[in-house]
Amino acid sequence: MASEWVTFFKSTKIPDNFDDQLLKIKDFAAKNIENGVPVCLITSGGTTVPLESHTVRYLDNFSVGTRGATSAEYLLSADYAVIFLHRRGSLEPFRRHFQHLNILDLLDDSPILNVSFSVKSTHAEQVASVLKKYSVAKSSNRLLMTEFTTLAEYLHLLKGAARILGDFGPKVLFYLAAAVSDFYIPSSQLPEHKIQSSEGALNIQLQMVPKMLRPLVAEWAPRSFTVSFKLETDEKLLIPKAKQALKNYNHQVVVGNILETRKKQIVIVTQSEDKCVRLSEEEISSGKEIEDYIIQEITHRHQMFMAK
Amino acid sequence: MASEWVTFFKSTKIPDNFDDQLLKIKDFAAKNIENGVPVCLITSGGTTVPLESHTVRYLDNFSVGTRGATSAEYLLSADYAVIFLHRRGSLEPFRRHFQHLNILDLLDDSPILNVSFSVKSTHAEQVASVLKKYSVAKSSNRLLMTEFTTLAEYLHLLKGAARILGDFGPKVLFYLAAAVSDFYIPSSQLPEHKIQSSEGALNIQLQMVPKMLRPLVAEWAPRSFTVSFKLETDEKLLIPKAKQALKNYNHQVVVGNILETRKKQIVIVTQSEDKCVRLSEEEISSGKEIEDYIIQEITHRHQMFMAK
Repeated sequence: MASEWVTFFKSTKIPDNFDDQLLKIKDFAAKNIENGVPVCLITSGGTTVPLESHTVRYLDNFSVGTRGATSAEYLLSADYAVIFLHRRGSLEPFRRHFQHLNILDLLDDSPILNVSFSVKSTHAEQVASVLKKYSVAKSSNRLLMTEFTTLAEYLHLLKGAARILGDFGPKVLFYLAAAVSDFYIPSSQLPEHKIQSSEGALNIQLQMVPKMLRPLVAEWAPRSFTVSFKLETDEKLLIPKAKQALKNYNHQVVVGNILETRKKQIVIVTQSEDKCVRLSEEEISSGKEIEDYIIQEITHRHQMFMAK
Repeated sequence: MASEWVTFFKSTKIPDNFDDQLLKIKDFAAKNIENGVPVCLITSGGTTVPLESHTVRYLDNFSVGTRGATSAEYLLSADYAVIFLHRRGSLEPFRRHFQHLNILDLLDDSPILNVSFSVKSTHAEQVASVLKKYSVAKSSNRLLMTEFTTLAEYLHLLKGAARILGDFGPKVLFYLAAAVSDFYIPSSQLPEHKIQSSEGALNIQLQMVPKMLRPLVAEWAPRSFTVSFKLETDEKLLIPKAKQALKNYNHQVVVGNILETRKKQIVIVTQSEDKCVRLSEEEISSGKEIEDYIIQEITHRHQMFMAK
């Protein structure tokens, strides 16, 4: 019932700079839609669930943010504007190509004229190509970065953004790739200080997080196009659970993936079909990314949705 | 009793490349000790505790790794060789000065001669200074990087490294700054697949991790100098708990800190004293780091220990 999520939001803290961030989102979306550019909200990375008010320990969901950061690049190439709502420190579009590298290994350590450093020639071409796309996205005001860390921050921002973006109707695409915790501890039940290990075994009781897809589709942005993701480790659960989600929440697409194979195989599930997409061995070795296909599938369906 | 940690190691998996990593540590330490350079093992960052075998969810300890990464730089300046055993993705010495920056924002987007990129003049001086120290540490073979993610990986590597380094006796300093989980789930009790949220509330039962400081000091490296860290959020627990740790494990120093003030205030606790060290407002605004003082205090005590 609707009151579940109302209770959740009432019992958790609104993030810092909340109004500021929403204002930026509103402004960004309005300008792009005005220019005929469709807007996508991508969520990316895992959410944390603190176990103490002064947080030393927390639950986390495994995700470095590859799916979201990679998809953002392909969406920008497909002429979308992208709001990138991501876990602080997780992978970012463009920057992801270098996040595993130490910048200090990328630079020649013999400075030119004592003040200028140059990128090693081994990396210059890659830097050139990424830097160009990054500069275009920035200068054309097509990429807005917004951050979260905790589950509560994420859900407050998602709700705020969805209500604003919902007003722009079918031109808005929600691409919910973040790995969101299903469980949380209500703030009233959180111990204030670090749990002491002298107490022997630890028993943590978590409650279920209400499914926010329901109010997102039914109330916050009912005219927009929504894509959710389903990650499983047990293959036989994947398609049944994806279909169940479509039935429960009545949105447009579930992208299903299995933890071990998520970088080379996904399934696009809609009310009428399920379509498996795989990279060939040749494509994998040539550096093709599965997100290229996911974005083709999604933007094609979103175009048809807008045309109706 | 000793059998607790024996059981822990038997019931958890040895990390990938374990033997390789230990071989590197052994070689690195032997060469440096031979050259009269004392060796410090720094542990840094938080450990994860997976809640499933195919891990989607895990418990984590809050730590970006500032204490360890910063201390490594000051130890290198104090002519130590450093083995940096850190959480994958956490802050690293030297690199930490740029880890919050996007490399693409650091480079001029107008390439010189179409292939070479230069660092923006606003950052050139900082890059120059850090790059120089980094190059020296690398070329003189004074810095060895080793990584962990899970609690089990961390403890296996700590044990393996401590047994090797223990042979070098008093010339070895253990600087245990990692934020290590006090609780874990034995692998025999882990569900194989992702916990399903349809099951309603979630109840997690964790067991206490045996205190590894005990075998480290008593068995693995009894002649070395060991510094442990204690992080609390409740100020009145800090010194009593630090003193209790010294009594329990019989090592040389506990560095105590409070979560909120850890970047400007610490307390050095030994069998005979507790000494509070604080940065003045002036020092904070001039960019002084508390690790500079911590390393002065620790290396001074370690020198005296070696001289005995």
